Amino acid sequence: MTNFIKPVIWESDAIRLLNQQKLPGEVEYIFLKTIEDVWDSISELKVRGAPAIGITAAFGLALWAKKSGLNNLEILKSELGVKAEYLNSSRPTAVNLSWALQRLLKAAEEEASAEKVIERLETEAILIQQQDEETCKRIGEYGFSLLPDNANVLTHCNTGAIATSKYGTALGAFYIAKERGADLHVYATETRPVLQGARLTAWELQQAEIDVTLITDNMAAHVLKTKKIDAVLVGADRITANGDTANKIGTYGIAILAKAHGIPFYVAAPLSTIDLHTATGDDIVIEERHAEEVTHIGGKRIAPEDINVFNPAFDVTPSGLISGIVTEKGIVTGDYHTKLKELFEGLTV
Amino acid sequence: MTNFIKPVIWESDAIRLLNQQKLPGEVEYIFLKTIEDVWDSISELKVRGAPAIGITAAFGLALWAKKSGLNNLEILKSELGVKAEYLNSSRPTAVNLSWALQRLLKAAEEEASAEKVIERLETEAILIQQQDEETCKRIGEYGFSLLPDNANVLTHCNTGAIATSKYGTALGAFYIAKERGADLHVYATETRPVLQGARLTAWELQQAEIDVTLITDNMAAHVLKTKKIDAVLVGADRITANGDTANKIGTYGIAILAKAHGIPFYVAAPLSTIDLHTATGDDIVIEERHAEEVTHIGGKRIAPEDINVFNPAFDVTPSGLISGIVTEKGIVTGDYHTKLKELFEGLTV
Repeated sequence: MTNFIKPVIWESDAIRLLNQQKLPGEVEYIFLKTIEDVWDSISELKVRGAPAIGITAAFGLALWAKKSGLNNLEILKSELGVKAEYLNSSRPTAVNLSWALQRLLKAAEEEASAEKVIERLETEAILIQQQDEETCKRIGEYGFSLLPDNANVLTHCNTGAIATSKYGTALGAFYIAKERGADLHVYATETRPVLQGARLTAWELQQAEIDVTLITDNMAAHVLKTKKIDAVLVGADRITANGDTANKIGTYGIAILAKAHGIPFYVAAPLSTIDLHTATGDDIVIEERHAEEVTHIGGKRIAPEDINVFNPAFDVTPSGLISGIVTEKGIVTGDYHTKLKELFEGLTV
Repeated sequence: MTNFIKPVIWESDAIRLLNQQKLPGEVEYIFLKTIEDVWDSISELKVRGAPAIGITAAFGLALWAKKSGLNNLEILKSELGVKAEYLNSSRPTAVNLSWALQRLLKAAEEEASAEKVIERLETEAILIQQQDEETCKRIGEYGFSLLPDNANVLTHCNTGAIATSKYGTALGAFYIAKERGADLHVYATETRPVLQGARLTAWELQQAEIDVTLITDNMAAHVLKTKKIDAVLVGADRITANGDTANKIGTYGIAILAKAHGIPFYVAAPLSTIDLHTATGDDIVIEERHAEEVTHIGGKRIAPEDINVFNPAFDVTPSGLISGIVTEKGIVTGDYHTKLKELFEGLTV
């Protein structure tokens, strides 16, 4: 049995949340008992990873309704809208946050009493978490199918169980390998500046007893050349209609290095990460973050005072460098423009 | 006047050494009084940079001889060989270390008494340092000649004044630009795990009022794509007969990224870094260092306990990715195998 760390656990009258800010030094669970607790935990990155944020917010809204004591349907619905807006303000960019809250509000509309609404919000939040688990498991299975026996795989940033409900996206393939007893070795880049690889991926895979080696980001080329790497597998923050992929800074460089060494480069992500309304990577605005993320590590200054810093949080990998996009509906290769659109046939985009 | 920081100062009965491990927070000089102090300071990276290591080792051997009290020529020479071997074991990859020690041993051979040998070792070590300064200045001038007006240049690790006697190798071009009043902008990678870029290059260029922006290593691809970079200029720890170049981990990846973006990639190094006795990069021993360099930053743990770590200090860039090798005797391009050998014509290798 794989030892999964669950980042978000529903306790009926509270949310038990893994405090990811304390990792890997401390595995601390905190209890969120009010909607304000939920807002703070998302805002302060105690929970991170787009799917995990959406799940936490959904439980947060259900929790508030359950404890509201409201039995008037109209007042309850009106207040729900206000509270959803409040939760949605906890982080500006994560798409899954508003997606999950909208889904709960829509479900509430279908119920005819306050009591039923409160019940439905809870079951809908639980369903979102369950479906995310199913989605991740399928992504993991498709990802695993791409790997040879005794695979050596390189990954970047954290795309694992603690960023989702279970399994993760790119890391899902490694959990499935573990469950099937397949041998596999993972090289995890530390992922400066925020060190999601060193702090989260290395820790998460170690907990699950998956064979993992930590490297600095600039060792990727040497590892790709000398360590018989079979594949690179990463996640995504946004995939545009033509397959261009925005992901954690450093991903684009690794994609070029993989190509130079003839190693396939795969992106794993759920359909909710694919943005057919954005044509190409050129249309993606790259967020630039605080200089302190580069000049300080764990509160300690590592660079001179007043040094100029450039700190883009993401980069864009052109689709031409991507060997395949692994989704819960299968693996897309080749003509991304046509094939990504086909994934959504029968679904509302 | 450029504000140069001297890393190694000969004090007749000791070596005054800039402790580069304390930079940029503290400018601390320490005194090395025994050969063991010298070995430790090289091994622990208190002094680093191939030329500076060679200079420190040369002074270390001269210092030991001076304090040995030996007056028997044969015993002295025999012991010198043992001590040179000891110092040479402090770091495996940089060729300047053995080059400097061999030069001292050869000079000692020319002397007919223990007293003369001891004097000669000291003057020879001083000469190595003086010549390195001249060498670096010429490398800087040749390097500068490769850059357009208002150049944007990316560099990796630290190859500056504090890695040599003065000016540096790759950074020499930037100091010459500054002295000539030429505009130039440098992007410096932080250079994990030891952060020579963030701690040393950023600090050194800032001290010299050269326009510098600090980035993490994994931002190189995005910067090469988006910041109109004219050239990449790096140093070297060892250049083999065919032009393959061992340099700080991450260099090989940047060379691939430069090629992918059509940007020239130059290596700047003195002849003492060129090792004609080693045929190709495959024959270079890559030093692997302590896991703690990766798992800890500034004494603070950033990764889980007991995590596997791979920590190669260097990688090898094949000569095919190198647009030119900038030496004190000019810029070598094309057929490195023939042209590097020609640089040494009339010199004893």
